[in-house]
Amino acid sequence: MVNPFFKNSGPFKISDILQLMNIDDLEIDNDQKITDIKDLLTSEKNDITFFHSKKYKHLAKNTKASFCITTESLKNELPENCKSLIVKNVLVSTSKVTSKFYPSSIYDYFDYTVQDITETKFKDKVKFGKNVLISNNVTIGSNCLIGHNTIIEQNVSIGDNCSIGSNVILRNSLINNNVSVLDNCVIGKHGFGFFPINEKNLRYPHIGIVIIGENSEIGCGCTIDRGSMSNTVIGKNTFLDNQVHIAHNVKIGENSIIAGQVGIAGSSILGNNVRIGGQAGISGHLTIGNNVEIAGGSGVIKDISDNSKVMGYPAKNIRDFLKDNK
Amino acid sequence: MVNPFFKNSGPFKISDILQLMNIDDLEIDNDQKITDIKDLLTSEKNDITFFHSKKYKHLAKNTKASFCITTESLKNELPENCKSLIVKNVLVSTSKVTSKFYPSSIYDYFDYTVQDITETKFKDKVKFGKNVLISNNVTIGSNCLIGHNTIIEQNVSIGDNCSIGSNVILRNSLINNNVSVLDNCVIGKHGFGFFPINEKNLRYPHIGIVIIGENSEIGCGCTIDRGSMSNTVIGKNTFLDNQVHIAHNVKIGENSIIAGQVGIAGSSILGNNVRIGGQAGISGHLTIGNNVEIAGGSGVIKDISDNSKVMGYPAKNIRDFLKDNK
Amino acid sequence: MVNPFFKNSGPFKISDILQLMNIDDLEIDNDQKITDIKDLLTSEKNDITFFHSKKYKHLAKNTKASFCITTESLKNELPENCKSLIVKNVLVSTSKVTSKFYPSSIYDYFDYTVQDITETKFKDKVKFGKNVLISNNVTIGSNCLIGHNTIIEQNVSIGDNCSIGSNVILRNSLINNNVSVLDNCVIGKHGFGFFPINEKNLRYPHIGIVIIGENSEIGCGCTIDRGSMSNTVIGKNTFLDNQVHIAHNVKIGENSIIAGQVGIAGSSILGNNVRIGGQAGISGHLTIGNNVEIAGGSGVIKDISDNSKVMGYPAKNIRDFLKDNK
Repeated sequence: MVNPFFKNSGPFKISDILQLMNIDDLEIDNDQKITDIKDLLTSEKNDITFFHSKKYKHLAKNTKASFCITTESLKNELPENCKSLIVKNVLVSTSKVTSKFYPSSIYDYFDYTVQDITETKFKDKVKFGKNVLISNNVTIGSNCLIGHNTIIEQNVSIGDNCSIGSNVILRNSLINNNVSVLDNCVIGKHGFGFFPINEKNLRYPHIGIVIIGENSEIGCGCTIDRGSMSNTVIGKNTFLDNQVHIAHNVKIGENSIIAGQVGIAGSSILGNNVRIGGQAGISGHLTIGNNVEIAGGSGVIKDISDNSKVMGYPAKNIRDFLKDNK
Repeated sequence: MVNPFFKNSGPFKISDILQLMNIDDLEIDNDQKITDIKDLLTSEKNDITFFHSKKYKHLAKNTKASFCITTESLKNELPENCKSLIVKNVLVSTSKVTSKFYPSSIYDYFDYTVQDITETKFKDKVKFGKNVLISNNVTIGSNCLIGHNTIIEQNVSIGDNCSIGSNVILRNSLINNNVSVLDNCVIGKHGFGFFPINEKNLRYPHIGIVIIGENSEIGCGCTIDRGSMSNTVIGKNTFLDNQVHIAHNVKIGENSIIAGQVGIAGSSILGNNVRIGGQAGISGHLTIGNNVEIAGGSGVIKDISDNSKVMGYPAKNIRDFLKDNK
Repeated sequence: MVNPFFKNSGPFKISDILQLMNIDDLEIDNDQKITDIKDLLTSEKNDITFFHSKKYKHLAKNTKASFCITTESLKNELPENCKSLIVKNVLVSTSKVTSKFYPSSIYDYFDYTVQDITETKFKDKVKFGKNVLISNNVTIGSNCLIGHNTIIEQNVSIGDNCSIGSNVILRNSLINNNVSVLDNCVIGKHGFGFFPINEKNLRYPHIGIVIIGENSEIGCGCTIDRGSMSNTVIGKNTFLDNQVHIAHNVKIGENSIIAGQVGIAGSSILGNNVRIGGQAGISGHLTIGNNVEIAGGSGVIKDISDNSKVMGYPAKNIRDFLKDNK
């Protein structure tokens, strides 16, 4: 399978990276090579990372990164192996550095390298409809179907026995075996993440991908955005109904059922065996436990612990909600 | 017009059907031919039906079916003409039997039999855009328009004076005269119905179709799923705005107005002259009366009687809601 | 740039217009030429306008129109220069007159005049994907991208440095410089506006367009309907996330951020620097001030003043909402 993750243009000399942030007063080896930019948890030696909120100090103190973009007030949380790079706005500086390593991850211009599938190696391997377009940087397993007018752009890897519907657009996605993606989905575009600036917002890079676990099904007209610094993940055997929107960095567990028109905002993490009724919404950066049931139409604005059943807006214990609303 | 209903592969010998359910201890004529599987109400002699909930015992006692898949605790509700077939899980067994009669109704793989409309009999009969694809099993009345990139798959019958937009996907649908279907709709795919099973959910067949009454309009980006054991119906002169989702088995009456982003869950039945504001949601298996008004954003979780105006979540009398929320 | 506004078939003699409304007892110069039909505010001498609700009497008293379709009870609000035309149903009569001036603005049949872009003047000017279709009445600035399967119908003008995604449908739209429209959007179709009539609703004309300000971004699967008698406007540097629905005549200010699955009903007007969380809904004909924040999932049913933060359904002050729902 192709590795659909974005290609790293690095390594770069630390001096080139510091220049992006207008930092020139550090006593370091200017020629040190920096391999990559990653989050606090996954960084290794010779990587650069970022730390912008106290919320992550438990991760900061154990990071293995060699450098960390951060602020004066947070720098003392970092371990000795990690040199702090003090900036005014951590996220803007992180965006600049990420753009250097992954220049193609900022905008999602249409992929002009696609070809009609009949002109590619897939023409005898895949069962396909009319007007199917495929990029050069794609792998597809055995026994797959691809519907009419579907476009498979850069950085896509599809497993065995998958059925992709018609009018689907895929990019930057890893789709495991036995997955069905129904008609009109758009999967793998950048998330709705940018720095609001008067006159002209600044888009930041999205270097994550979308990963869909095996045996899952994605309903018609769903949108699943790829992650910014991590991936967007749909677990194994999880089914999404029509018109669901999954924002960037969301992680959904296994064996979950998500009904029509649900929306899950950026970076929320859901456990296994979660059931969500139609039109429910989940705010960003929340943690939803295992075996949680969220009634249709609910609005979840705080974390939900394992085995809870919630309803309402803001969502609370379903028995309390029904009692209060008799 | 073509009959767009799924083709029945039967009749089958009752012994072949019993084998699917591992029933081998019945004293019956093993060679008896079974014609079809239907619901309790519409079954005829020599049909097989199913009965899984007390809620339907008023239908069960009058069924004309010769056999009924049911449980030990429900079997005594059935009339003498109907022999009970006792199973552990009625719906799973029903699914297996239905799959035998209607093998093509489980999955919605893209229809590889479609051809470019310019290669079909419709090329001189219909006014069409670029890249229109049509299956061999389709009828289209006089004076119709079909927009660019639209795909009309198996089992579709379109009346006279219809306008189908661009990027539309139709299958398993009966569209009456003077209907407009706007751009990007997906109509007639299977519903979001399956048996949740760890590791690998089991999809059940959807043998119903979508029926759209005359003079109706379906907005951009709507999804209307076909029924499982009955049809999904949009009544005459009913207008849907953009991004509406109508689940399987839903029935909407005549002269109704449904604003943008509304969602109606499976098997709910709505009367005539119903008005629903934007983003409202209706839970599954409900009955909404005639002349009902549902305010935008409401969440309806119980039946609504004729001539009611409701608002809120859970939706209640609109005057009460507004008084409580001053 | 092309002027994407609908082409006016007039002028017409006032006698021809009165005939549409069965008015034949006025003492006027039957040969007077009427130039156009416009709203109360923008009408000029020799235009006809309409006035159907007391709510607009401050506009009525200053209108420059020569004629106004109105009712017996409202006519005295009109200035001397404006002759009242008394009818039973102002909006139905307005619809008839508008249809005379703008006959192509009622229905959105697919545009059969489009050609493959490779057969047009744009083939060397624009960077485009496969199967792009463009009408003869379109302008596109320099340095633009147009994705696969995108359809650009009549009355579209696109500025410089714009990126239009794949599977997009545009019509009747003015898109300024540096705008991104992502995949699967439908922009510029008529709104969900019609007169409900048993058996067969009557669609009224939509002669407005959609105007998108520079530096804006429209997410995947959004629908933005054009205006009926005015335009639908998205201000400069305003970003919409996926699956947002903007109804006809809505005006959104500059530097605003609108998250996924939000819906804004017809004719509401939003200020600058507005932030709206996911799945929030705004009812029709409301005024939302500058710097307003609306929490995700909220339902706004009344005007919101500048600098407010609101939450809930009905939306109220966010601190009150959170206190009430502890």
